[in-house]
Amino acid sequence: MRVEKVIYDGDPGHDDAMAIIMAAGDPHIDLLAVTTVAGNTTLENTIKNALMIMDLMKLDIPVVPGCAKPLLKKLQTAPMVHGQSGFEGPEHFVPLRQASKEHAADFLIRTFMESDGDINLVAAGPLTNIALAMTREPGICDKVKQIVFMGGGRYGNITGAAEFNFWVDPEAAKIVIDSKCKKVMFGWDLTEKAIVTPEAFTKISEIDSRLGRFVRDLIEFYALGPAKGTEILPTINDACCIAYLINPEIFETSDYFVDVVTTPGISYGMSVIDYYRMNTWDMSPQPNVTVAEELDLDLFWEIMLNAIEVFD
Amino acid sequence: MRVEKVIYDGDPGHDDAMAIIMAAGDPHIDLLAVTTVAGNTTLENTIKNALMIMDLMKLDIPVVPGCAKPLLKKLQTAPMVHGQSGFEGPEHFVPLRQASKEHAADFLIRTFMESDGDINLVAAGPLTNIALAMTREPGICDKVKQIVFMGGGRYGNITGAAEFNFWVDPEAAKIVIDSKCKKVMFGWDLTEKAIVTPEAFTKISEIDSRLGRFVRDLIEFYALGPAKGTEILPTINDACCIAYLINPEIFETSDYFVDVVTTPGISYGMSVIDYYRMNTWDMSPQPNVTVAEELDLDLFWEIMLNAIEVFD
Amino acid sequence: MRVEKVIYDGDPGHDDAMAIIMAAGDPHIDLLAVTTVAGNTTLENTIKNALMIMDLMKLDIPVVPGCAKPLLKKLQTAPMVHGQSGFEGPEHFVPLRQASKEHAADFLIRTFMESDGDINLVAAGPLTNIALAMTREPGICDKVKQIVFMGGGRYGNITGAAEFNFWVDPEAAKIVIDSKCKKVMFGWDLTEKAIVTPEAFTKISEIDSRLGRFVRDLIEFYALGPAKGTEILPTINDACCIAYLINPEIFETSDYFVDVVTTPGISYGMSVIDYYRMNTWDMSPQPNVTVAEELDLDLFWEIMLNAIEVFD
Amino acid sequence: MRVEKVIYDGDPGHDDAMAIIMAAGDPHIDLLAVTTVAGNTTLENTIKNALMIMDLMKLDIPVVPGCAKPLLKKLQTAPMVHGQSGFEGPEHFVPLRQASKEHAADFLIRTFMESDGDINLVAAGPLTNIALAMTREPGICDKVKQIVFMGGGRYGNITGAAEFNFWVDPEAAKIVIDSKCKKVMFGWDLTEKAIVTPEAFTKISEIDSRLGRFVRDLIEFYALGPAKGTEILPTINDACCIAYLINPEIFETSDYFVDVVTTPGISYGMSVIDYYRMNTWDMSPQPNVTVAEELDLDLFWEIMLNAIEVFD
Repeated sequence: MRVEKVIYDGDPGHDDAMAIIMAAGDPHIDLLAVTTVAGNTTLENTIKNALMIMDLMKLDIPVVPGCAKPLLKKLQTAPMVHGQSGFEGPEHFVPLRQASKEHAADFLIRTFMESDGDINLVAAGPLTNIALAMTREPGICDKVKQIVFMGGGRYGNITGAAEFNFWVDPEAAKIVIDSKCKKVMFGWDLTEKAIVTPEAFTKISEIDSRLGRFVRDLIEFYALGPAKGTEILPTINDACCIAYLINPEIFETSDYFVDVVTTPGISYGMSVIDYYRMNTWDMSPQPNVTVAEELDLDLFWEIMLNAIEVFD
Repeated sequence: MRVEKVIYDGDPGHDDAMAIIMAAGDPHIDLLAVTTVAGNTTLENTIKNALMIMDLMKLDIPVVPGCAKPLLKKLQTAPMVHGQSGFEGPEHFVPLRQASKEHAADFLIRTFMESDGDINLVAAGPLTNIALAMTREPGICDKVKQIVFMGGGRYGNITGAAEFNFWVDPEAAKIVIDSKCKKVMFGWDLTEKAIVTPEAFTKISEIDSRLGRFVRDLIEFYALGPAKGTEILPTINDACCIAYLINPEIFETSDYFVDVVTTPGISYGMSVIDYYRMNTWDMSPQPNVTVAEELDLDLFWEIMLNAIEVFD
Repeated sequence: MRVEKVIYDGDPGHDDAMAIIMAAGDPHIDLLAVTTVAGNTTLENTIKNALMIMDLMKLDIPVVPGCAKPLLKKLQTAPMVHGQSGFEGPEHFVPLRQASKEHAADFLIRTFMESDGDINLVAAGPLTNIALAMTREPGICDKVKQIVFMGGGRYGNITGAAEFNFWVDPEAAKIVIDSKCKKVMFGWDLTEKAIVTPEAFTKISEIDSRLGRFVRDLIEFYALGPAKGTEILPTINDACCIAYLINPEIFETSDYFVDVVTTPGISYGMSVIDYYRMNTWDMSPQPNVTVAEELDLDLFWEIMLNAIEVFD
Repeated sequence: MRVEKVIYDGDPGHDDAMAIIMAAGDPHIDLLAVTTVAGNTTLENTIKNALMIMDLMKLDIPVVPGCAKPLLKKLQTAPMVHGQSGFEGPEHFVPLRQASKEHAADFLIRTFMESDGDINLVAAGPLTNIALAMTREPGICDKVKQIVFMGGGRYGNITGAAEFNFWVDPEAAKIVIDSKCKKVMFGWDLTEKAIVTPEAFTKISEIDSRLGRFVRDLIEFYALGPAKGTEILPTINDACCIAYLINPEIFETSDYFVDVVTTPGISYGMSVIDYYRMNTWDMSPQPNVTVAEELDLDLFWEIMLNAIEVFD
């Protein structure tokens, strides 16, 4: 069986929790560490949230804190989606496990530079930590197997143009997109299809473990977030990156030229994806990103539910 | 029978030709005048091309020349799509009819200000003439019934971000979008669905009139343009605006907040359409544009073919 | 004696008043008309203020209203400098004279196109009217002798980067700067040297005419504007343009390449003046603007005071 | 005698050489290390150039290599000023001393975090290393005594708007300017006054040491750079930062609000300095940078010449 080594960089966050559980619970993934960054909530909260998940899974891997703010912009979080703690819904507890002392950028540089080039980097938050590591050690791109990230997309979810992760740190996104690393993108428009169906929620509710109940409470709150009072279903965006590493065939992908707007104004932080020109004009730039476009939701949930059930 | 008065402002252009023929040939439209602007080709060419169509239809309405260049940018045309003349394909001839002496902006101001508010303005090229008229006479928005325009969209066709008409004159597009006129938008992504199917092309080829042969030759060339050597079918984008006025039910529409990027750079000239926030955040700006999203292609071609056949 | 024909386009405004009086009172200037634009205050106020000055001078020339708002931006006025009316200080009255019915852009086009190319265009407000005229009739640049304008400069006075006239309508400034008209620029840094010295103010105060008293009251208020409670002297910026036409030797000038920032953000509306590169790099763009850099304040005031004293 | 501890971060470079010599030769400065960054020339060249100076001065302090490219932009160097090597003029040699293995950002973080807050950071190149260190360790600003930097200014020297150091890495400049470190700015307009007068060059030519001859050859080439064939004198820009630490009274300074344009376009990389508003509008932002505005050239050269003569 093929097993993919993964370092997960994110800002947990409800859908980060699901992604981490999927990575830890699925036999095709060897989750080496979780590095965290400010985004959905503050750095402090993302660390605590990641540690709570580790406790619930009884998993001893490094949880490594990174940047507390974006490169240039002031930090803007998403309490309207994730609550003030980034993890509203379940009852919180003081995690037994503790965060690493190393900085995430140093950890990423050290781990990748010492590796055989066989570790995937999943990035599910603002790309600050990764941009910092690439700037400090450009050689890291020769060692990262691929960056599979959630960010950008065909339309915005925090402004009319920009998706949240790119918008929180547009300059970091630009550094990563412009890097020579192999990149696979899960944008908002695609990951918005990873909805929690009523059937999936019913099955989650039936998982009778401490982790299962925690997850159920996360999703119950999450469903009330942006969609409060509407019929919009919550979406498990970040877990798409992990699902892709488990089984790429869950997704259809195409290669496009992608760029990031770093110009302050109404398009700040958006991804520009060259959907049309690749087919047409000779002058079109070469594709630099593999972009996920379709999702098999049944396969996605089969993997997700199996992963949760692993933990007793 | 409901009849809509229309002034058509455009840059003919292969698909402009189809739009003008649809407007002149369909009984639901009373086409009052054609004003032209530089875009697909130079102003001089757009005038000559419009006059040739008038000759072929034996239609005596004003053809009024407007702006030879965008407000701020240098003019960039689309010879890779429309050829140098903007009308490559058929044999050209010297039109008998002549252009008006008045400037399009003056004509628009005069005609709308003297009207009862019952005239639609269809805009199928860069919005330079209309922005100029609005700046010179802001009162025009109280008199225009609605602006139905082809421009902008979910993705670009000339850059990764921007559609051609908006990109040629982003500042004019911004002036029109920010105006208080009622606006209906036919963006690139929607109008790209108005393809010339093989069946439609066969039927056009069977129309045995001088106009029919001219149209056939236009489309034959057009099919070779951006898609040369591929299987991409040509699209009759501009005619969507007219089809909407004939029968709005051909299209599905939604109202969105739309803005235009006037910041030079990779997103210059793109439309930002607030697809997501309208459903979600309270802070979302109020919708200001009705955006067409789906098209009934059979109904579209029924109208188009009937219109061409009107002319002997 | 050389006499320069002048059309004055501005947004009176205290220093506009001084400029108009200098133009009307000096024998070297033949003032043909005043066109007004929104800027220091609303269009409505600029018309009334211009008409009051005409009444006080008993001068029968057209006062022609133009644009009530900038091309793209919302109008922002300067009540902190000029008061709500744009003319705070003296007692206002209902002017006997009346504004023209024609729009300033139409008036400029008509007058310049019918001229022998011997009329100077002085522009002392936002450049909206002139940009509009140039867009509607690009041929106007072959007929304008030169545009002598107050705007831009080495540093800002309304933001850290931008001077007020350029900042109110950056896109109009860009259109004018990019036009092929001959251009002479009086930027903020230069015109800020045209201070009302205590001696000048004393002399104005001794002019015992209705106009003289009105001017004294204007300046008395003006001195209290931005500099309220400080020792900063008020400056008669706009009049520099007229003084230059009367006697160019009052000023030192150099030719530079000038551009305008139309990108929203902290540099929006600033002029970029290529001070350094002209001396150095071969790649430097060709100079397109003559920029005034030094001022002989004694000569300036001699002309200004003589002009006021002309009117009884 | 007051002695200032200094770490010098720069991109040698002719004027960097002079700055380093001034720092190493003057008794008021305790030069702890030189960190280098790509800018005037490649990172590789800046290291070699710094090491050659160390050999000539027989000075054993760390020379620490940092970033080989700016955060977001591609590297653009200045061969038209400094030649391909960054050090054209004198005969090059293979330096005996060697560069540190540590990365400059790590070195800066470690050294400042372990310090008592008594070390000045002089920054005379693009601010990439320092921005990287601040992002990785925001606490560094509590430990840096002050950042004395050469960059920005009232007008540009590489574009009409932007000074070279800021323009090479605008995003790094923005990070440093926005940081809470105490900042003293030596902009292009000020440092352009630090000319090599004919008298100064004569005195340098008379210094009969290996270092003296190397410096003479550097300046001889430097004088031929941008000003080739003109009478423009070369300027020792970077050394102003060191001169300030030796004797602040050589300069006049004022405090201003300074910002950096990170918007691609004609103003990209420029510093916006709020010269005017500080005097006037209440709404002006608080000053965040001390800006040098006048220079005593005689005192500057007295210090500079004494420093060169220290080395035999």
